[in-house]
Amino acid sequence: MINVNVHITLKEGVLDPEGKAIEGSLHNLGYEGIEDVRVGKLINLTFDNSDRIEEKVEEICRKLLANPVIENYTYTIEDGVAK
Amino acid sequence: MINVNVHITLKEGVLDPEGKAIEGSLHNLGYEGIEDVRVGKLINLTFDNSDRIEEKVEEICRKLLANPVIENYTYTIEDGVAK
Repeated sequence: MINVNVHITLKEGVLDPEGKAIEGSLHNLGYEGIEDVRVGKLINLTFDNSDRIEEKVEEICRKLLANPVIENYTYTIEDGVAK
Repeated sequence: MINVNVHITLKEGVLDPEGKAIEGSLHNLGYEGIEDVRVGKLINLTFDNSDRIEEKVEEICRKLLANPVIENYTYTIEDGVAK
């Protein structure tokens, strides 16, 4: 069992309305000193084998999970213990 | 400048329709061997000082960012270089 964690974040300069909403709520709740909030996605994929895993994950990120025009992605691949 | 990364994931057993949709799309695109897909959130908070930071982040997660009934959260606090 292979565990892949994909982190998808908006590129710098791309507006993040969800982050701005959270920032506004934090100010309304009385939290001070928060300069910026950015929201991204965390996608966990479980593979049953490690065959060409890096190539597959790279392709899946580019084709389906991220929009490379406005988003960056990084991923970690962990070889888990079989269940 | 303090960088806080909050990872929010659905608890085990909680249905994840977004993850199921991605899983379906991956099968349609011809990717085999994917057993499970779970989608979570990645929230990056930038603080201007480290005053009571852990206490604040814990409270913010519990009160605003996560729904503790169905979601788990973890966070990392990084002391960045001041800009």
